[in-house]
Amino acid sequence: MSQKREIYCVIMAGGVGTRFWPKSRKSMPKQFLDILGTGKSFIRMTFERFNKTIPAENFLVVTNQNYKSLVLEHLPELTPEQILCEPVGRNTAPCICYAASYLKSKCSDSLMIVTPSDHYVANEELFSQTISNCVEFLDNHNALMTIGINPTRPETGYGYIQRSNSDTISAVKCFTEKPNLEVAQAFLRSGEFLWNSGIFIWKTDTILSAIERHLPDMYALFNGIADQYGKDTEAEAIAGVFAQCRAISIDYGVMEHADNVFVHSGDFGWSDIGTWGSLYQHSRKDKYANVKPAEGCYTYDTRNSFISLPKDKVAVIAGLRDYIVVDTPDVLLICPRSEEQNIKKYIDEVKYNQGDKFC
Amino acid sequence: MSQKREIYCVIMAGGVGTRFWPKSRKSMPKQFLDILGTGKSFIRMTFERFNKTIPAENFLVVTNQNYKSLVLEHLPELTPEQILCEPVGRNTAPCICYAASYLKSKCSDSLMIVTPSDHYVANEELFSQTISNCVEFLDNHNALMTIGINPTRPETGYGYIQRSNSDTISAVKCFTEKPNLEVAQAFLRSGEFLWNSGIFIWKTDTILSAIERHLPDMYALFNGIADQYGKDTEAEAIAGVFAQCRAISIDYGVMEHADNVFVHSGDFGWSDIGTWGSLYQHSRKDKYANVKPAEGCYTYDTRNSFISLPKDKVAVIAGLRDYIVVDTPDVLLICPRSEEQNIKKYIDEVKYNQGDKFC
Repeated sequence: MSQKREIYCVIMAGGVGTRFWPKSRKSMPKQFLDILGTGKSFIRMTFERFNKTIPAENFLVVTNQNYKSLVLEHLPELTPEQILCEPVGRNTAPCICYAASYLKSKCSDSLMIVTPSDHYVANEELFSQTISNCVEFLDNHNALMTIGINPTRPETGYGYIQRSNSDTISAVKCFTEKPNLEVAQAFLRSGEFLWNSGIFIWKTDTILSAIERHLPDMYALFNGIADQYGKDTEAEAIAGVFAQCRAISIDYGVMEHADNVFVHSGDFGWSDIGTWGSLYQHSRKDKYANVKPAEGCYTYDTRNSFISLPKDKVAVIAGLRDYIVVDTPDVLLICPRSEEQNIKKYIDEVKYNQGDKFC
Repeated sequence: MSQKREIYCVIMAGGVGTRFWPKSRKSMPKQFLDILGTGKSFIRMTFERFNKTIPAENFLVVTNQNYKSLVLEHLPELTPEQILCEPVGRNTAPCICYAASYLKSKCSDSLMIVTPSDHYVANEELFSQTISNCVEFLDNHNALMTIGINPTRPETGYGYIQRSNSDTISAVKCFTEKPNLEVAQAFLRSGEFLWNSGIFIWKTDTILSAIERHLPDMYALFNGIADQYGKDTEAEAIAGVFAQCRAISIDYGVMEHADNVFVHSGDFGWSDIGTWGSLYQHSRKDKYANVKPAEGCYTYDTRNSFISLPKDKVAVIAGLRDYIVVDTPDVLLICPRSEEQNIKKYIDEVKYNQGDKFC
């Protein structure tokens, strides 16, 4: 009998997330915010979601070195050695390659669940069941597994996964980037396309083989420093690797090319809550369809608006329809919901004039 | 030759002014705010306007006892004895009666210039000339003088003074309260009506005689405690007087009934700046007709709006037309300019739910 395979959860938490500006900042990105008002940050909710079945010592968090102390603050169950620090963000492929080669150096036979740190899951029980199914499937398959979400609307902000058939677990035909509305509507009608959740499950050996094949330079870079992991020289070695590493997503660099990719479809109320608009969609509304603090926010002739205030601040808001109002101690944003794609532009102008202080 | 008559300036500074909420508060009413961004509060500007010709020791400020220290902070040239404290606000007649009887007890022959503390004057030179003309006129007349402003629009927020003729100094036919728009338009066309600036000039003896005649009870109350002025018992005596005193304006209680009322017309760029709207009218606008801080306020597709921010706060504001946005450290107000008459209602609801803390 083989030894039981160790299951690890790798949380990717390097995003700088400007789309929830001014609440999110470079110094405090979305994964560390309690934007849903649950009392817990996204990264905390992500940890707790997996910690039901995976012990704390089997977590790794890959993040920017600037966020290491924030991660430890939000996840005090982890030790500093469990935080893998990127000197710069290089998209998901180097992040995953780092985690996989690190795990390989620690444990000869492990399975990785890779997850973003800042997504929302409504039905945690169904979610856990989905993960279990994937782990079980991997007992008999050397597959690269992803979780795809049955789409409920022609969302243009997500990537899509085309599956071969409608089984719960199906081989993947292809990955696609964010479509335009017409394409998204066709995807939705076809029934063949799932939203790409960015959650992956695979044996460490399987993903390393796939990276070796499809991103051989990257594989070689990390393989070349594998003997430094856990030593004082690790940070310096990693700095050298990231300096040479191209920025590429695991989807684009590996998943689109590999022939052993499978998708498990899911209906567990997933959202990446990537915009103020999607947060509005997922939040409880008052009878005028406003999302606003339970106390201290007085609205008049105001409809379909999202309002966020600092703790203990009072606001009187009259005559707004379909607006986003986000007040923070040092920045106030008022913007029509239909204009939120311009927030990046607003930030750029603030940065140009004021420097990084408010961004 | 008679001794030169002493000229006193009496600044009425008891208003609680909620119309500039949330910037003005009960604890910090308009007269103590630098709402025009000049670097000086209204009461400071008022003091300096008169201090060009009247020495600091000839000022009196009548205010609520809660504002005494604020007054001394803004007008450090004054001594505590120059602040007459009202235990409660009872409109302008008791305020003026207190100041007049106090002055009478100090000085046998004085002239009073009575002024609100929170108005704006653009042309200070013309204003000073107007005051000089009035003082000169009083050399030969025992008149109750007011200053009337040549109206430039059918303002419904002001009281009006009807004059007998179009001389610079004219006898007054009558005082009227705030008219409706149709009446205000007729007033403007007639050329007979001036805006009531609330500035009065008279000999102390003349106003005391008029109060004795038209408000005999009030006169008797203050006359009965005149021997307490400047003594330790003054505050207690005044508390007793104000408890019995009816609340009435000097216009309604005296000026409308007296037969020796004259008005000096003026064109010195006066405004009471009583609302966010009038502040908007008097402020410098950008090319999109927005009034906003010179720095840190980024507007997009925003027109005809008034924006006020705390020092050093950044705001991004998109898609607003004709709005008032006033942000303070603890309260945010967003409201169409056309709805500003509702601010009182908003304050009442905030007060009902949150108590006085934010009002």
